[in-house]
Amino acid sequence: MEYDPADASSLGDMTDSEFREALALVGDWVASYRQRVGRLPVLSRVAPGQVSRALPSAPPSRGDAVENWIKDLDEIIMPGITHWNHPGFMAYFSLTGSGAGILADLISSALNINGMLWKTSPSCTELEEAVLRWYAMSMGLPADWFGTVCDTASTSTLVALAAAREATGLNIRADGLAAKPKLVLYCSEEAHSSVDKAGIVLGIGTQGIRRVPSDECYRMRIDALEEAIRSDLAAGRRPFAVVATVGTTSVTAVDPVSEIARVSQKYGLWLHVDAAYAGTAAIAPDFRWALQGCEEADSLVSNPHKWLFTPIDFSALFTRHPETFRSAFSLVPEYLQTESRGAVDYMDYTFQLGRRFRALKLWFVFRHFGTEGIAARIRNHVHLAKEFADRVDSHPRLERLAPAPFSVICFRARPEGLNDERALEQLNAAVLEKVNASGEVFLSHTRLKGRYSLRLAVGNLNTTGDHLRRAFQLVCEAAGLAL
Amino acid sequence: MEYDPADASSLGDMTDSEFREALALVGDWVASYRQRVGRLPVLSRVAPGQVSRALPSAPPSRGDAVENWIKDLDEIIMPGITHWNHPGFMAYFSLTGSGAGILADLISSALNINGMLWKTSPSCTELEEAVLRWYAMSMGLPADWFGTVCDTASTSTLVALAAAREATGLNIRADGLAAKPKLVLYCSEEAHSSVDKAGIVLGIGTQGIRRVPSDECYRMRIDALEEAIRSDLAAGRRPFAVVATVGTTSVTAVDPVSEIARVSQKYGLWLHVDAAYAGTAAIAPDFRWALQGCEEADSLVSNPHKWLFTPIDFSALFTRHPETFRSAFSLVPEYLQTESRGAVDYMDYTFQLGRRFRALKLWFVFRHFGTEGIAARIRNHVHLAKEFADRVDSHPRLERLAPAPFSVICFRARPEGLNDERALEQLNAAVLEKVNASGEVFLSHTRLKGRYSLRLAVGNLNTTGDHLRRAFQLVCEAAGLAL
Repeated sequence: MEYDPADASSLGDMTDSEFREALALVGDWVASYRQRVGRLPVLSRVAPGQVSRALPSAPPSRGDAVENWIKDLDEIIMPGITHWNHPGFMAYFSLTGSGAGILADLISSALNINGMLWKTSPSCTELEEAVLRWYAMSMGLPADWFGTVCDTASTSTLVALAAAREATGLNIRADGLAAKPKLVLYCSEEAHSSVDKAGIVLGIGTQGIRRVPSDECYRMRIDALEEAIRSDLAAGRRPFAVVATVGTTSVTAVDPVSEIARVSQKYGLWLHVDAAYAGTAAIAPDFRWALQGCEEADSLVSNPHKWLFTPIDFSALFTRHPETFRSAFSLVPEYLQTESRGAVDYMDYTFQLGRRFRALKLWFVFRHFGTEGIAARIRNHVHLAKEFADRVDSHPRLERLAPAPFSVICFRARPEGLNDERALEQLNAAVLEKVNASGEVFLSHTRLKGRYSLRLAVGNLNTTGDHLRRAFQLVCEAAGLAL
Repeated sequence: MEYDPADASSLGDMTDSEFREALALVGDWVASYRQRVGRLPVLSRVAPGQVSRALPSAPPSRGDAVENWIKDLDEIIMPGITHWNHPGFMAYFSLTGSGAGILADLISSALNINGMLWKTSPSCTELEEAVLRWYAMSMGLPADWFGTVCDTASTSTLVALAAAREATGLNIRADGLAAKPKLVLYCSEEAHSSVDKAGIVLGIGTQGIRRVPSDECYRMRIDALEEAIRSDLAAGRRPFAVVATVGTTSVTAVDPVSEIARVSQKYGLWLHVDAAYAGTAAIAPDFRWALQGCEEADSLVSNPHKWLFTPIDFSALFTRHPETFRSAFSLVPEYLQTESRGAVDYMDYTFQLGRRFRALKLWFVFRHFGTEGIAARIRNHVHLAKEFADRVDSHPRLERLAPAPFSVICFRARPEGLNDERALEQLNAAVLEKVNASGEVFLSHTRLKGRYSLRLAVGNLNTTGDHLRRAFQLVCEAAGLAL
């Protein structure tokens, strides 16, 4: 396999006609998938190792035809897919990779730009600024906030808390944390695990993360927050940030952000809001209340890849203090020096240098649905969830375990006379397994004040009342209950 | 805009025929783009704010047709694109979003799965394991290393150094860094800025990052490394990690990894290798030397989205110590508890929870090119770069500033009698600006031991000898030199 420059003409990429043919094939596959996904088992049924064993252990030395990749995709990969785009997917947070988002992502992949600097594709930076302004405005957040796209909320929260750490003025960027006071950050006991992971990465340590007790509706208790802050101060520790959640992962509870903002200001703490799921709901004016008080926050994350029909990954991070993000992160080696005359270089606001052209996805989503279309779909999901909740509430042997302000329902089966928590857990875990084995719907679970709970989330554009009626039926059957 | 459930039928996504029509339109756009990209100005010519001003300041309330999005894409967005997929793009690291990679990404967007847990799509986990094994094997790295896909090398290095910090046994995950000894990490003065950013995020601080001097070929000096470690130990600081680079950003120098590994072992330090660019070269057996010693590393990052024709973003992180990554990161809240019977849940090995199905891209790339096809293309790029370097070397008024072991050339114009560094910088910066204004090629620059250097990188599948001859001609013209 000597190098022969005479062969160089064959060392390019696919030709135009090869690409067009392959794209027609893959495009048809994708369109057909979108049509048939609702008839596939939503939860994959493969055993661990089954996919691995069907894949060659070594890479191919020579290429083969796209028809063969598609064949292997169908035969090896597809049985191992859990279909997040299935209308019966009601686990975790249900979502949609919408047609508009898929089309935009195809263009992003073809352009294959890296928007690390304004200069390396001005449109990547300026469209990102524009669509994040649209997103903020549509949620009723200040249009003049600075926005940046991260891959996931985990990254957004990590970056925001790094800025919060910088805002302490303790010169941690230069000195590090050794020999500094012990920093402490606060979130409710219902906050997402990404807050803990951010605290770990940042060197705060899990001991520096206070999970403040929540009230009976799973909202952070202000009295407990303030008590925790005072106790840390008295012990010589240094509180620096609070994470409030708008739409907690388990029950979509909304922390009292206005009150948390008051406490944050009183003690000089950075307020970060995790609105990854429920932020988008505020595009429907009837859910604007959910973000009340968030205009007081220092930073906020909301994820279009959750409830805004945008293919994964796309997390929007907003802040009132872009200069603090720059102080935390800007670091420009010579090979990245440019003269961009006042334009934003997004690499200055985070630790990631590479930047895929994600803004295109959200742009197409807004262009396709419009804010009214988005709002109508959000309302529809909440309506469908409410119908399900009503059915649970009116069933004598089903029990709801939390309020459902958006489109997530926590509930369990509770046969007559069964009060033992352990027995209830066993029963409901078995119900979950049976329901999910149906292949028709996929629910998840959580634990609420110690009680095992089933959890149903509505969020896919193709989910209808029929899917929810079927889910209800499956739950009743699995629990041995009358409908 | 009251919610009317009777309208629910219109609250889904595009219909099948709408999607197919739109995909035909977008597909044709993408194929045409791939054909015409070489005739567009490679570096965008818009002024800051030009794209922004053409975009509405508020989101549309109602959706419009895909034809209009494409029209705006062409008229507003495209002028602001710097074309990374242009054969004349020779700045930074030149790359290719290959046809195979684009097709795979389209499928990923349509499946829209989140592979956070094995259960949430077993194929995402098991294909990721398989293709990363293929990638490791093709580079001659141990096939039994654990691999995980990150978005960018910045994330891979951050995650690896978080594991390194955990490996100190100082219980930092729980306690945080306050009251711990000052940790120190080492890299060469030529290492990528992502190492500094990781150190900042991790709370090590820039004072805890030693940039070890490099030799005349820009490789880390072992004597200087060991001296720095000893001096930190003597001062009571705690060395914990070394980052060696295989293919530095400026000149693609290869640090002496075997020797660095010996020093790392001697002092009990974690060795992370940044092979983001040059790792892929080792797929060609004649460049296997570049990864010599890397089998001794504790972790290594190499980026298929750089030289392996995979659309951004895709960074591969390998380690011999997956259990250390788990210790650093695993944290499973109730709502993510699953029974996956020994399977890998990738969320346990990093701070990011969401996981796009990126493995599909690398799978299709291997399927299309095969390792021999990849190796031939790598060799071709190195050959093209060598031809350019030879042309520079044989020109009396051009000067090469560094060895070029791969496909990146650092050089400058040096008119007769001009020896003043400041004058040389001014001249070459002007050359760069003129060349880039041509729209035919896009070069970048760097600084080498204080000297301003032009920098040309070959890495796009459509770059030919003609493009490089033209680049040479443009440089000579801009510098007022004879060819």
